[in-house]
Amino acid sequence: MKLYFATGNLNKFAEVGKVLQEYGIELEQVDMKGDEIQAYSVLAVVEDSAKKIAKKFSKPFIVEDASLQVDVLSTFPGPYSSYVFKTIGPAGILKLMEGQDDRQAEFHSAMAYGEKGKLIKRFVGIAEGTISKEIRGEEGFGFDPIFIPNGSKKTFAEMTMDEKNKFSHRGKAARVLGEWLSRRT
Amino acid sequence: MKLYFATGNLNKFAEVGKVLQEYGIELEQVDMKGDEIQAYSVLAVVEDSAKKIAKKFSKPFIVEDASLQVDVLSTFPGPYSSYVFKTIGPAGILKLMEGQDDRQAEFHSAMAYGEKGKLIKRFVGIAEGTISKEIRGEEGFGFDPIFIPNGSKKTFAEMTMDEKNKFSHRGKAARVLGEWLSRRT
Repeated sequence: MKLYFATGNLNKFAEVGKVLQEYGIELEQVDMKGDEIQAYSVLAVVEDSAKKIAKKFSKPFIVEDASLQVDVLSTFPGPYSSYVFKTIGPAGILKLMEGQDDRQAEFHSAMAYGEKGKLIKRFVGIAEGTISKEIRGEEGFGFDPIFIPNGSKKTFAEMTMDEKNKFSHRGKAARVLGEWLSRRT
Repeated sequence: MKLYFATGNLNKFAEVGKVLQEYGIELEQVDMKGDEIQAYSVLAVVEDSAKKIAKKFSKPFIVEDASLQVDVLSTFPGPYSSYVFKTIGPAGILKLMEGQDDRQAEFHSAMAYGEKGKLIKRFVGIAEGTISKEIRGEEGFGFDPIFIPNGSKKTFAEMTMDEKNKFSHRGKAARVLGEWLSRRT
């Protein structure tokens, strides 16, 4: 089947596309993303986005949003990770974490699937890990250079895309989506 | 005249109410605020909010949003000031500013006025100032304890409400609104 991904982020598109390929799903990019709402959970954000997109787009589509949540920073940067990345960036997070022993963090990916004018299903993938002590790696995007998923010693930015997809929040959400779509058809 | 302020923030309500009183305007709180959109400018946020409120509320109303923008942090925390306040807080901003000589910052307040189902006019107030080196004062709310407006040596949190209103972004926006409403009636 062909699935449309409403995103302007080519990194996300590539990551999700690679996972869904394994399920025989062909991913195509579509520029449908309107205003996102402010909400504490990315799931609420994508749910709202999916409802808006569904009103004007009848083909099968997904929309995704992700957040980095640092435990000792009360889940900051959370749903505004993209804005925080563009302003204080990974270096800002490391500065906020100076002297902090508890470096636990989570990456969340929320996806919403819609078709025929309706939001049909939501998926969440979570990667648990820690914030590194310095910026490491050049791969990936966003806060990848400072996040080390549990089970690895590398940051996401030190991994190939396939390796990152094994550990990552987005890879996990995409696999659940892929399995659900496979069972459904 | 009676004007409705769509806000859940009692501090904001009190500040704006005190200014508008001087123009003979009676402010009443109304719980109409729906989802705010994510946008780089608070003006875009309130404009969208006002349009949504106007659809279901025909009386004269205002909606307001504010942001703290720190120059060397690429305008962080910006439109997500309220979320950033609840997570890393003023102490987080001070940590990000450690060792920074350039401490210039701005507070922006954007207001939108609507009536009879329409967004009618927008107002912006800007307070220029600097980020203090430590948390000072107990008055006000939000990032008031770390912001010193130009022309004063006190932080907003060391001022009475009347004093803050003289210097503040919100006080300025409210006065322009008050003058405009007075001329109009």
